[in-house]
Amino acid sequence: MEVITFGESMVLFYPDATGPLRYATSFRKTIAGAESNVAIAMARLGHSVGWFSKLGADEFGRYILSVIRGEGVDVSRVLTDPARNTGLLFKERFGFSNPNIYYYRKDSAASSLSAADLDAAYISGVRILHITGITPALSPAARGAVFEAIRIAKESNVLISFDPNIRLKLWNIETAKPILLEIASKADILLIGEDEGKLLIGTEVPEKIAEAFMNKGCSTVVVKLGKKGCYAENLKEKAYVEGYLIEKVEDTVGAGDGFSAGFLAGILRGLGLREAAEYGNGVGAMATLVSGDMEGFPTYEQLMTFIGKTGYVDR
Amino acid sequence: MEVITFGESMVLFYPDATGPLRYATSFRKTIAGAESNVAIAMARLGHSVGWFSKLGADEFGRYILSVIRGEGVDVSRVLTDPARNTGLLFKERFGFSNPNIYYYRKDSAASSLSAADLDAAYISGVRILHITGITPALSPAARGAVFEAIRIAKESNVLISFDPNIRLKLWNIETAKPILLEIASKADILLIGEDEGKLLIGTEVPEKIAEAFMNKGCSTVVVKLGKKGCYAENLKEKAYVEGYLIEKVEDTVGAGDGFSAGFLAGILRGLGLREAAEYGNGVGAMATLVSGDMEGFPTYEQLMTFIGKTGYVDR
Amino acid sequence: MEVITFGESMVLFYPDATGPLRYATSFRKTIAGAESNVAIAMARLGHSVGWFSKLGADEFGRYILSVIRGEGVDVSRVLTDPARNTGLLFKERFGFSNPNIYYYRKDSAASSLSAADLDAAYISGVRILHITGITPALSPAARGAVFEAIRIAKESNVLISFDPNIRLKLWNIETAKPILLEIASKADILLIGEDEGKLLIGTEVPEKIAEAFMNKGCSTVVVKLGKKGCYAENLKEKAYVEGYLIEKVEDTVGAGDGFSAGFLAGILRGLGLREAAEYGNGVGAMATLVSGDMEGFPTYEQLMTFIGKTGYVDR
Amino acid sequence: MEVITFGESMVLFYPDATGPLRYATSFRKTIAGAESNVAIAMARLGHSVGWFSKLGADEFGRYILSVIRGEGVDVSRVLTDPARNTGLLFKERFGFSNPNIYYYRKDSAASSLSAADLDAAYISGVRILHITGITPALSPAARGAVFEAIRIAKESNVLISFDPNIRLKLWNIETAKPILLEIASKADILLIGEDEGKLLIGTEVPEKIAEAFMNKGCSTVVVKLGKKGCYAENLKEKAYVEGYLIEKVEDTVGAGDGFSAGFLAGILRGLGLREAAEYGNGVGAMATLVSGDMEGFPTYEQLMTFIGKTGYVDR
Amino acid sequence: MEVITFGESMVLFYPDATGPLRYATSFRKTIAGAESNVAIAMARLGHSVGWFSKLGADEFGRYILSVIRGEGVDVSRVLTDPARNTGLLFKERFGFSNPNIYYYRKDSAASSLSAADLDAAYISGVRILHITGITPALSPAARGAVFEAIRIAKESNVLISFDPNIRLKLWNIETAKPILLEIASKADILLIGEDEGKLLIGTEVPEKIAEAFMNKGCSTVVVKLGKKGCYAENLKEKAYVEGYLIEKVEDTVGAGDGFSAGFLAGILRGLGLREAAEYGNGVGAMATLVSGDMEGFPTYEQLMTFIGKTGYVDR
Amino acid sequence: MEVITFGESMVLFYPDATGPLRYATSFRKTIAGAESNVAIAMARLGHSVGWFSKLGADEFGRYILSVIRGEGVDVSRVLTDPARNTGLLFKERFGFSNPNIYYYRKDSAASSLSAADLDAAYISGVRILHITGITPALSPAARGAVFEAIRIAKESNVLISFDPNIRLKLWNIETAKPILLEIASKADILLIGEDEGKLLIGTEVPEKIAEAFMNKGCSTVVVKLGKKGCYAENLKEKAYVEGYLIEKVEDTVGAGDGFSAGFLAGILRGLGLREAAEYGNGVGAMATLVSGDMEGFPTYEQLMTFIGKTGYVDR
Repeated sequence: MEVITFGESMVLFYPDATGPLRYATSFRKTIAGAESNVAIAMARLGHSVGWFSKLGADEFGRYILSVIRGEGVDVSRVLTDPARNTGLLFKERFGFSNPNIYYYRKDSAASSLSAADLDAAYISGVRILHITGITPALSPAARGAVFEAIRIAKESNVLISFDPNIRLKLWNIETAKPILLEIASKADILLIGEDEGKLLIGTEVPEKIAEAFMNKGCSTVVVKLGKKGCYAENLKEKAYVEGYLIEKVEDTVGAGDGFSAGFLAGILRGLGLREAAEYGNGVGAMATLVSGDMEGFPTYEQLMTFIGKTGYVDR
Repeated sequence: MEVITFGESMVLFYPDATGPLRYATSFRKTIAGAESNVAIAMARLGHSVGWFSKLGADEFGRYILSVIRGEGVDVSRVLTDPARNTGLLFKERFGFSNPNIYYYRKDSAASSLSAADLDAAYISGVRILHITGITPALSPAARGAVFEAIRIAKESNVLISFDPNIRLKLWNIETAKPILLEIASKADILLIGEDEGKLLIGTEVPEKIAEAFMNKGCSTVVVKLGKKGCYAENLKEKAYVEGYLIEKVEDTVGAGDGFSAGFLAGILRGLGLREAAEYGNGVGAMATLVSGDMEGFPTYEQLMTFIGKTGYVDR
Repeated sequence: MEVITFGESMVLFYPDATGPLRYATSFRKTIAGAESNVAIAMARLGHSVGWFSKLGADEFGRYILSVIRGEGVDVSRVLTDPARNTGLLFKERFGFSNPNIYYYRKDSAASSLSAADLDAAYISGVRILHITGITPALSPAARGAVFEAIRIAKESNVLISFDPNIRLKLWNIETAKPILLEIASKADILLIGEDEGKLLIGTEVPEKIAEAFMNKGCSTVVVKLGKKGCYAENLKEKAYVEGYLIEKVEDTVGAGDGFSAGFLAGILRGLGLREAAEYGNGVGAMATLVSGDMEGFPTYEQLMTFIGKTGYVDR
Repeated sequence: MEVITFGESMVLFYPDATGPLRYATSFRKTIAGAESNVAIAMARLGHSVGWFSKLGADEFGRYILSVIRGEGVDVSRVLTDPARNTGLLFKERFGFSNPNIYYYRKDSAASSLSAADLDAAYISGVRILHITGITPALSPAARGAVFEAIRIAKESNVLISFDPNIRLKLWNIETAKPILLEIASKADILLIGEDEGKLLIGTEVPEKIAEAFMNKGCSTVVVKLGKKGCYAENLKEKAYVEGYLIEKVEDTVGAGDGFSAGFLAGILRGLGLREAAEYGNGVGAMATLVSGDMEGFPTYEQLMTFIGKTGYVDR
Repeated sequence: MEVITFGESMVLFYPDATGPLRYATSFRKTIAGAESNVAIAMARLGHSVGWFSKLGADEFGRYILSVIRGEGVDVSRVLTDPARNTGLLFKERFGFSNPNIYYYRKDSAASSLSAADLDAAYISGVRILHITGITPALSPAARGAVFEAIRIAKESNVLISFDPNIRLKLWNIETAKPILLEIASKADILLIGEDEGKLLIGTEVPEKIAEAFMNKGCSTVVVKLGKKGCYAENLKEKAYVEGYLIEKVEDTVGAGDGFSAGFLAGILRGLGLREAAEYGNGVGAMATLVSGDMEGFPTYEQLMTFIGKTGYVDR
Repeated sequence: MEVITFGESMVLFYPDATGPLRYATSFRKTIAGAESNVAIAMARLGHSVGWFSKLGADEFGRYILSVIRGEGVDVSRVLTDPARNTGLLFKERFGFSNPNIYYYRKDSAASSLSAADLDAAYISGVRILHITGITPALSPAARGAVFEAIRIAKESNVLISFDPNIRLKLWNIETAKPILLEIASKADILLIGEDEGKLLIGTEVPEKIAEAFMNKGCSTVVVKLGKKGCYAENLKEKAYVEGYLIEKVEDTVGAGDGFSAGFLAGILRGLGLREAAEYGNGVGAMATLVSGDMEGFPTYEQLMTFIGKTGYVDR
């Protein structure tokens, strides 16, 4: 296994039309989860990836399991909590603005994930452990699991990748800030958005965000800049890497997770900072060509063609 | 207002196909709630009915409110709890057997309904207060609301109608039994199923069930017997009243609530026991002609035609 | 051309679910029309058939035209009335009982069809003119068209086939009866239902119905008996011909029109009364295997297999 | 009751795809009606509103009634005409251009609404009576109802609000013009489009339109200018009030009715001309964020946030 | 008959959403075929048109037949191959880029069409024979049919119209080029795209493309330039004719076929080169207003209005 | 790995309605394949199962792979043929009779599977190799793969299970018979239908079928008798084992594969003949409770409850 990640995946219900949900007549079912998005994207790029979480002993848990397993991600460490439901979320869309989200995840199975649920041997054998700032927001137990996983990884020289993924619907910034900063300070690779820099460090300037976290101990910081691309810095170099132009964006959800997956794939392949950032930009851009969180993630061949490393790709 | 009832209504999601929910691709949205079913059925029969509950300050709460208000039920006392979600449920169907149900109602807005939420003047002015055994299963607070409502009704000589509606997914029979028996002992009209008699009294024999509850203080007991009809008893008479034959049952959900509504409508119209039971049988039978909980409830004219009191009804 | 028929075809909207239409969220569009059903069924059996009506100069008229033309029916005499709408109908289904029907056909384009709209040369060149009792119910003008078509047919020795198709939503029996009896008395072939015999002649006994109309001048009378088959009588013979058993009926609509088409196809092929009746029973039965009015009508080869004249048909 | 309005609401069928209706396979059902749109929008803004019309005694009428009642509008004066159908309309969309409309409303139940149907006490007790120019186009009887309602309102010092809503599919401009001008001259508040000014007064210049109607006796004239906002004038002031920029318009239908509702809500709250116009612009803009006529109308809180009077609104 | 064309039409399946087909849950069925598109477009413009192909003896073949016949195209020469399937294709869409296409047409019924299947009398009696470069790509037999049809047409002075429609999924350019050039050299009217000029002649310059083919013996060459319009040249004149601006393009598929149909319709009506090109531009532009290949083709009246030859058309 | 099976899985398209496919407007996508059905059913029962085939390098192949992998089946040996399509099939339903099937599988990727594609080590390490009579019908190469797999299994003392699954749409009985008999004679466990016995042995009598194949060398023969259950015989015992009554059968497809999976699971668990047959009957019966081929297969716990070995199962 090259990469492991863990965190809550939920069943996501999309309404059949824009507008207030009370007028929607039917809903399409799919899955959502920042960590499973990264796992799926990396599996599609050809890496061996493991993902785990705690699921309810219900049909929605079985659904999530079969989708993620179907994508070729190792799910051998997924746990089941027979006493809790699998979490749900509903999206509500208005024109081009961001969707509203209604969560049914309080006290979900995933929120009961704890340090005791971790298989240390599973984690210690990989090259990268990818963590997000959503998991510590779920519950004290889940927060404990995050710190224990970090401890295990550190012990075994597993690289720690961290995406803060700040969710103000789950906790307020006062509670979140010290915890996320602490996790970031333990991470090797930090993948962060401009707006998250503002919330955690007080600046949106990419170089300043990077500087702050390099000072805290990160060896690589990438500031995601949406369609503009990213700013990346490690101990040896720093660079703005421009994004790919998408004529018509179908759906930006999943682009950030795609970026992370692309960047980490580049790192795993031993690429330099700039090229890994191009991979990140490429996967992120391709994710926006398709509605749905993870349907648009490319294979390695598709990515190479998209970012111009090979000839025409006939998907 | 002639009748008031209260209790949790939820948004119900139906899958597009039979079989395990993990294979369903889309879900249709409607509402479910035993008490609002009774309210809607009685409003359609021409009575003035009020229903209330506590809803989340979300789109699902607004949806429930507009559907029940659209049916002509008074919703002026419905409350909103901005800190809790509106409850949900999902159905899973296999051939003819009963559907499996997945609840997302733990700690829902409705479960926070309490005695303090009651408008005594609203309750004390009606002829019948209809209560189910679902509400006391939601939370201690909701249980308190039930007993307080009973107290108010008693004080004002409002008739109390009670349907135990035992839900073993919400509480176990050991907890439920003493509470339901206590409520039943305070009720004037008890509307109960055979199987519920078994659980509460230890017998499925209609006459014995009725006898037990008449001894506890009820003045009218009706034992619902499904398609066979019902057994009804009051202080003056007792009778088996046969049900109406339905050639093709579309969906039995809502039939029990329809029965209750029909019977109570008969009481409000001053009918005798037997004729009120015919109304109950009629509304229950008509509910099964249509898929959906409440779509099949008839108007008074349709009911009269169906049970043969008038000529041809062109629905 | 072997056969001509004319009369109103409408756009039919089916709700997505059983129950009152106010709860239906979407509607499927198809066409309905007794005469076009007969035309399509006969075309599928291999006959050259013409159908005409007056359609609105709107998309619904264009839709009806393309569907019927697509089935291989000659539509060269279809007229357009730019001042009137194409008629519509909505169906509402409850369990197994007959659907309710909501018409939007008052003052439709078809109801303005008149004697002046007929192309005498078109009618006089065929072997059978098929007429229904729906057309004279639409308007006095349409009634005039029916009698003029009969006059033209008589003049040219074209056989007249008549199906009363009594529609009490369009006219009352007092108005309908004398007109339908007059048309029947001019018909060579009468295709009539038991219940229609009751309404027009006062008896449901097939032999008595046949006798009455033979006395009025018909040379062939077929009384349709639904799944039981039919009773057929002409100047030479009389017989009950048993229907084909259908294990699961999907939808009986179109079966009567299918019967008429099958019987007339038998006559055109020069078969005896009994065999023509078998054709009628066969097409009628096959129509019930499929939901939809006309989708289930068979080809000649399929019919032969179904009624056992050839081996296995792989539809 | 603060506001009353009346006029035809119909069932609206939307095809599942752009292009000619004959290629559409299914249709979604909703409701349409300029007056009920205004009523629903004002109810959502927190006002007590009554709406009435005449509906068919059919499922479509029941549907309209339950939707409008569900939105919290008083429907206690709605009438039923058992002899007529509820009106329908179908929309046909091509790219961005305005949809084509196919009406089935000739001789509908609403078109039989007459002066005799009005409840004078109901009308005389409100602050504003809102009328549109669609109702007088339906029939002479409906026209009579409009003038009688105006007479009642005048007698009781009820403010009269009028939106010409010129529908050239219902009557030609020669017939419409004198009647609409007469109604306008009796109105206190005129809400009119630029193009309607052109048709009625011969100029599209907002100031000139306003001047003409102020001279006819209106005390407030608002000329709606679509996304540009509006020009408003009363006896004390006059102003162009700019509209709100919408990044992606989903559907402009309902925006004009939303404007009227917003403006009248401002008047009821005692705002000045300019601020009332901002309310109108806001509601109109928000209606375009959502497909559907009335689904996008905001609550008062949502409106305040949208037009920047309060902080972020989490719809 | 004025025009005849022939070639493979297939059943086309559209997924319900953008993105990789493996995530699509349902597919909508329609038809696709360059030649039948031209036939349908010309029939809608009022011309008598015949189309033929070989279809499988299956439901998909029957479907194609009824759709094309329903559009008023003569299908009397369509053949059936009981040993082969009707061809299929699936489309996969990503944002605005061209869809991917998955063919199931190898060894299809249409690919067995051969010279022996042609009805010489049918072809020799028309004014224009329209051929595409798709048919010779299907099989050697189909290629033979194309050359035989050309021979028959030449013999009878039937004008030959040719659209190369290069499909690199069916054959490679090395194989295609000599064959398409040979066909083009026998054509009277060549309708060709810029990119096709590049592939066949080595230049995208419209005048150079035209010159090359005029030198090969064509008497009319039209180079289609998409939304820019076209360059047209015949023995007497040459001109760039500008296209019509479409505010929102729904779907460009079918635009090229619409252009061909419009241009040929102009030729049949005896128009000059420039005006025929305007017809082509108009039909092509109108096709893009509607999703679907052929649903957007106009009637002659609609076309006249669109290109400004008459007043407003209310479709 | 305990079990391996291989053979063609295809994408299956279900129409939205009963009746001829030409009238269906949309199609739902799922997968079909007798061998993958057995693999999925056994995986759900808790066994480690491998399945392989050759898939096209297309979206349909990727879809099949992710579904089967998602069910927990090992797909590590699945191959891809970039030169061929993944096979498809369409179903057409009429009332209760068996659906018609339209294949697009000729020359599919799976039909190119050959002996050279087998991984001998993969096969030789399992306890059971399950083979069907469909694979040898696909092509000579595929037939070669079947015999080579049998050879490998024999060499390693892997039990060979064989289900003839006769498909007369793929080959005629004359060709099929000797090949299927040869395979059967090499099998240890034969799972066969009554009607297949008739075709291969000339008798429908279960004991006679079993006797014939025991004489050919099978050590276990099970004759599947549909809802009646099965007749099972091995070297030690023989028995009729009654099936489970299903009140309402949703869909019988998949029942035979479910039977095989249940029986083989029993064998793997070391059960006696009769009990293994009960497992087979149970899985087969449960498959019919759900529409869809494989959605209804139970987990081990669900099976135990269904066949009465444990208490109530709350699926």
